[in-house]
Amino acid sequence: MGRGEGGDRDTHMATPELPDIDAIRQAAARIAPVAHRTPVLRSKFFDERTGAQVYFKCENFQKAGAFKFRGAANAVLSLPEEEARRGVVTHSSGNHAQALALAARMRSIKATIVMPEGAPAVKRAAVAGYGAEIVTCAPTVRAREQTAAEVVARTGGVFIHPYDDARIIAGQGTAALELLADVPDLDVVLTPVGGGGLTSGTAIAARALSTRARVLAAEPAGADDARRSIGAGRILPSENPQTIADGLRTSLGELTFAIIRRLVEEIITVDDASTLMAMRHVWERMKIIIEPSAAVPVAVLLAGGARFAGRNVGVILSGGNVDLDALVWSAANG
Amino acid sequence: MGRGEGGDRDTHMATPELPDIDAIRQAAARIAPVAHRTPVLRSKFFDERTGAQVYFKCENFQKAGAFKFRGAANAVLSLPEEEARRGVVTHSSGNHAQALALAARMRSIKATIVMPEGAPAVKRAAVAGYGAEIVTCAPTVRAREQTAAEVVARTGGVFIHPYDDARIIAGQGTAALELLADVPDLDVVLTPVGGGGLTSGTAIAARALSTRARVLAAEPAGADDARRSIGAGRILPSENPQTIADGLRTSLGELTFAIIRRLVEEIITVDDASTLMAMRHVWERMKIIIEPSAAVPVAVLLAGGARFAGRNVGVILSGGNVDLDALVWSAANG
Repeated sequence: MGRGEGGDRDTHMATPELPDIDAIRQAAARIAPVAHRTPVLRSKFFDERTGAQVYFKCENFQKAGAFKFRGAANAVLSLPEEEARRGVVTHSSGNHAQALALAARMRSIKATIVMPEGAPAVKRAAVAGYGAEIVTCAPTVRAREQTAAEVVARTGGVFIHPYDDARIIAGQGTAALELLADVPDLDVVLTPVGGGGLTSGTAIAARALSTRARVLAAEPAGADDARRSIGAGRILPSENPQTIADGLRTSLGELTFAIIRRLVEEIITVDDASTLMAMRHVWERMKIIIEPSAAVPVAVLLAGGARFAGRNVGVILSGGNVDLDALVWSAANG
Repeated sequence: MGRGEGGDRDTHMATPELPDIDAIRQAAARIAPVAHRTPVLRSKFFDERTGAQVYFKCENFQKAGAFKFRGAANAVLSLPEEEARRGVVTHSSGNHAQALALAARMRSIKATIVMPEGAPAVKRAAVAGYGAEIVTCAPTVRAREQTAAEVVARTGGVFIHPYDDARIIAGQGTAALELLADVPDLDVVLTPVGGGGLTSGTAIAARALSTRARVLAAEPAGADDARRSIGAGRILPSENPQTIADGLRTSLGELTFAIIRRLVEEIITVDDASTLMAMRHVWERMKIIIEPSAAVPVAVLLAGGARFAGRNVGVILSGGNVDLDALVWSAANG
């Protein structure tokens, strides 16, 4: 599966850009000066509930509040100077937007973020707060892509896809690289899957660094394109995803599909009620804020029954960007 | 100010039981096998907002969710075997109840907790979950004290006051002991003040371990008995405290009053709106859950203007026990 390796047996597409463990190691070196090495937390509650030893990799404490900063920083910092000077462009209403804006600011280059009309004001404010330019478009995938292409054509900026990009995947893989360095004897790594960047990077790292760790991807039942796509052997995008896990409404891309179908053991879906309950348990028992997308693998863990008993299980808590305006704050006076 | 030291100049009461730094060191050794050494977190947001270097001592990650476990564990573990066998008793509807119940369970002794009618079901469930017996009483201070006295008379159990007890104060002081070990050059330590156990222990530790660290106590404006009492030179209890900081509605006791009047530089009050905003900033920026009482010193920090600029400021985040039922969870779908 190496970069430029020719012995790929079952692929029907050219895969020269697939990142490997060397790309992840290089990404780790590149982003070390700017990204947090996030802590790994334990929880007696979750250990008792599952019979497992659970290790939570806390990307909610990452810069800009999510693992997305790893990939964005790797992409921005790996640009040659003459490309970087033209700035970076993406379309996102979520954590990738903030992450890319922050990474660009750190390199003192321009970032232009295409965001759909109706994106939450708090997210627009965060992106603007990092100094990025926001271009608004209609809330459709087509409008986003077209608008981003127009910005690229106009500015000469470098488009950085949120997940279907080897630099992004390598960056996201640094979370599992750190986790496996801290806890080498993991049996399972649980990660949420949306577009598949985090899952792909995690799977590449686990395959290279561990002989025993299997990677399981957790997906919302209402946005189960990854499960369906892997089952069908071809990409079947989500048409109208319905889930509170707003970071996981995206569909697999070509790169992430190719990696996940070969390296991920299983894709497990959970409903939103289980995700909400899992999120609440983490807030209440661990006293940390995670976002719904990060609670999806926790819900899979809790629903696992005896599956995880006696195992060392790593869970990547992908982010902590919750819109607190959606909670009723005056009610905090319980 | 030492235990049994005679050179006490301005006190009008006998002070043989005032704990000193040795008592705190002994408490630290006693509770080390059962309590967490909690982490000290930094936050770029708070550093930028204040111009200070802020160090957050995260007692929200402590066992049972608050610093209270330190004092309760110290009290329970320092009981002679023949006293311990009779069990422990207290009255509390808050974190001390859970903390004492857990500490008693760890020593396999009985705990009886007097709780007022109308205490939140979630708190009763937590206490019961630790195996303590709950005795319900009318929701007045008099009823609580009387009921606890009856339980002591009936069972021979040892009464452990929530704060006006040298063992409790010494235990609470271990948080500052750890903080000052991790960050020796603090200029200021900010702590919330309710009954004064945490503030007293913190002040004893800071005075003994640092020549420069001043202790400031943060109090809700609607429950400002400590500020008024220190100003008047005598204990003036809160009559009808009104604050969302439910852990800080109690009034100073004799021991804590004596310690605080000598060792605490200033008591600073803030209104609940500032506390709520401070709590929200911590949730949003640091991705950790703190309870309103823990946000009171954060509010003082944010309101401090230039007061803290350039200083190394320690803030004790006292606990993270928020009643999440009071938040509207379905609204998490922001």
